[in-house]
Amino acid sequence: MSLHTRCKMKVEIITIGDEILIGQIIDTNSAWMAAELTQSGFEVTSIQSVGDAARSIIDAIDLAFSRADILLLTGGIGPTNDDITKNTLCRYFDTKLVFSNEVLKNIEKIFAHRNFSLNDLTRNQALVPEKCTVIQNKTGTAPILWFEKEGKVLVSMPGVPFEMKTAMANDIIPRLQSQFRMEDYLRQSALVSGITESALAIRLADFEQGLPKGISLAYLPSYGMIKLRLFARNMDNTDLFQRQAEKLKRLIADLLVSETEKSLEELLGEELQTHNLTISTAESCTGGLVAHKITSVAGASAYFAGSIVSYSNEIKEKFLDVDKDLLDASGAVNEEVVVQMARNCAKLLKTDCSIAISGIAGPAGGSEENPVGTVWICTYYRGESIAKKYNMGNSRRENIERSANMAMLQMLKML
Amino acid sequence: MSLHTRCKMKVEIITIGDEILIGQIIDTNSAWMAAELTQSGFEVTSIQSVGDAARSIIDAIDLAFSRADILLLTGGIGPTNDDITKNTLCRYFDTKLVFSNEVLKNIEKIFAHRNFSLNDLTRNQALVPEKCTVIQNKTGTAPILWFEKEGKVLVSMPGVPFEMKTAMANDIIPRLQSQFRMEDYLRQSALVSGITESALAIRLADFEQGLPKGISLAYLPSYGMIKLRLFARNMDNTDLFQRQAEKLKRLIADLLVSETEKSLEELLGEELQTHNLTISTAESCTGGLVAHKITSVAGASAYFAGSIVSYSNEIKEKFLDVDKDLLDASGAVNEEVVVQMARNCAKLLKTDCSIAISGIAGPAGGSEENPVGTVWICTYYRGESIAKKYNMGNSRRENIERSANMAMLQMLKML
Repeated sequence: MSLHTRCKMKVEIITIGDEILIGQIIDTNSAWMAAELTQSGFEVTSIQSVGDAARSIIDAIDLAFSRADILLLTGGIGPTNDDITKNTLCRYFDTKLVFSNEVLKNIEKIFAHRNFSLNDLTRNQALVPEKCTVIQNKTGTAPILWFEKEGKVLVSMPGVPFEMKTAMANDIIPRLQSQFRMEDYLRQSALVSGITESALAIRLADFEQGLPKGISLAYLPSYGMIKLRLFARNMDNTDLFQRQAEKLKRLIADLLVSETEKSLEELLGEELQTHNLTISTAESCTGGLVAHKITSVAGASAYFAGSIVSYSNEIKEKFLDVDKDLLDASGAVNEEVVVQMARNCAKLLKTDCSIAISGIAGPAGGSEENPVGTVWICTYYRGESIAKKYNMGNSRRENIERSANMAMLQMLKML
Repeated sequence: MSLHTRCKMKVEIITIGDEILIGQIIDTNSAWMAAELTQSGFEVTSIQSVGDAARSIIDAIDLAFSRADILLLTGGIGPTNDDITKNTLCRYFDTKLVFSNEVLKNIEKIFAHRNFSLNDLTRNQALVPEKCTVIQNKTGTAPILWFEKEGKVLVSMPGVPFEMKTAMANDIIPRLQSQFRMEDYLRQSALVSGITESALAIRLADFEQGLPKGISLAYLPSYGMIKLRLFARNMDNTDLFQRQAEKLKRLIADLLVSETEKSLEELLGEELQTHNLTISTAESCTGGLVAHKITSVAGASAYFAGSIVSYSNEIKEKFLDVDKDLLDASGAVNEEVVVQMARNCAKLLKTDCSIAISGIAGPAGGSEENPVGTVWICTYYRGESIAKKYNMGNSRRENIERSANMAMLQMLKML
């Protein structure tokens, strides 16, 4: 159980850009913002994505202001012509663009740092609406615009993820927290595996129906795992929540992986560091995804040595000393191969632990004996190895993602 | 230039789930749907994400129906209690749930295939609204529901990406295409690199202002590259569009990477296959991401041998024969190391080409000489190697993504 602070004000996110509506990019901004805002105590009640058209932007703002108190916009304020948010905001807030020397200085600083020369289009970014508070963009050229109207707030930010994230973390969230009243709430998270969503729901049906008013339970299935979240809105009775959280933990004790909201790669990294262990991977069908996930955590070099991505059998032989006769006779997707991969990987890369994966990602390559989705995972820890066979399904992408998660999970359980 | 078919009917996407609003998951469904729909000729005009609450779902549907003709809903129809979409749809379309034997049979088939036993919650999925067309879910247990109302269509699908994608591709899009009238439009895509967005916009400013009515140009910057899209809405004059497309190509000839909408890893895979070449990678700071991207393309085993993810210097020495004295004297982030990594990788893994990357992903590890973001990339092709130094910026995640893209781009240019 952990205590968090929340704000009763509702937040809506509006992401702007034709590229979102034609699916050319995945809107990762809103997910990141929603996670940070939730973590910081704000409730996100809706996310809208609209195209680069004044009418669509104004409609989205009108709608959002009709039901929320804080509007966060990203995108549509770069230097090119298809970016029209700034002019639309002037229309909406009945103001005009004025030149800001302060913004120009910031742009010049950013450009000097990157060794770029300033051009006219970039200079135009120093034009800002008169009736707003300008927040300097520390990592890019488009300024952040903070508007207020009848006690409500609208903030317009660039769509470049790094610029938006820096502004949100350093400026927007702290300002929102100081401007709006915050109150406490309680949360208990749980990451479970080894059960289907419906079987888990049946196991928890009585518990869920017996929850006191104001406490709710949510399920989130994701590639072989389910995240559970017990959540108390506006609750002062900590003991009551604590009892429910403990009851939940008893009910899922055999399935529990973690009580935090951390990712598997973060959990694995922490576990390795706590026990002062190192790890390496030998990957066939996952093609390096486990190594990529492990190294996406800052500081991974303290425990991750490297990976042999052995897509071909020749590399399995040459770099992982897998027995050639075995590969010739039985192919690459079986228990013996994956055990050799894991053991030899740890030995050759001199790590305490290792993960080896070999399977059929599809769409081609399946057989009667090993259909698409068959994946062997072996985890190794100081002399011991555990090999398991999984069926990850038919989709190549899901298959690879799921295999990477199950491999990290299997390793975590072993430690 | 390529000819596509489009439908004048507007599509809105509504994704349902508290997990989206708290940022626990990134809504990749809507981006995939938007891309497929755009490709199939439909215009997506808005995307909304709402929580698991009847009121929010009904408000979102009301709003979407007020401005669009086709509504596609994902999520909120799994077996657990926090999924309430089905009941809400009954309320909205004034109908009730009835038991469908056909759906039950489908669920039993899916479960038999997965060796799961049927439970009561799953059986409840066979309850479907009376006033709708049920489309069998070929890959999961939640049925797809197709409602019609005054010439408009609402389709409710599961949120599990693989199930949604299978249903969209096999059932929903073909049905929509046969039900609504389709017409032709023109598109020219271009992927460019080696220029900032604002410098490109200045170069293309005259061209853009001179575009005939009905033709528009959009910019999409993404990790070291910019995608351009010239687009004609409702245009019969193919010659006029063709002339503009050729003018655009002349203006960006020196920057052009591709005229398709394919990803870099797809382009690289095609180029390698066309010339019957093989590739391997030696990755330090990217931690396997290039290998993962290359192997995310189906059929990559035809040209990808493997990767040595050499996060530690010891692995660089032992598996890539990088000179120990060099590493001890100059560290791992310099031209000589990355050239040795690339050359030895191709030699040892016996491939025609190779990519080697070494850099400082951050946040720690930077120095005066090599600040965070410094990345050396060497590409090798039959005896020749090219090494370049980049500054990828401060964010670890962006840094890794950008390095992977720039490496594939550098390799593509060399072939």
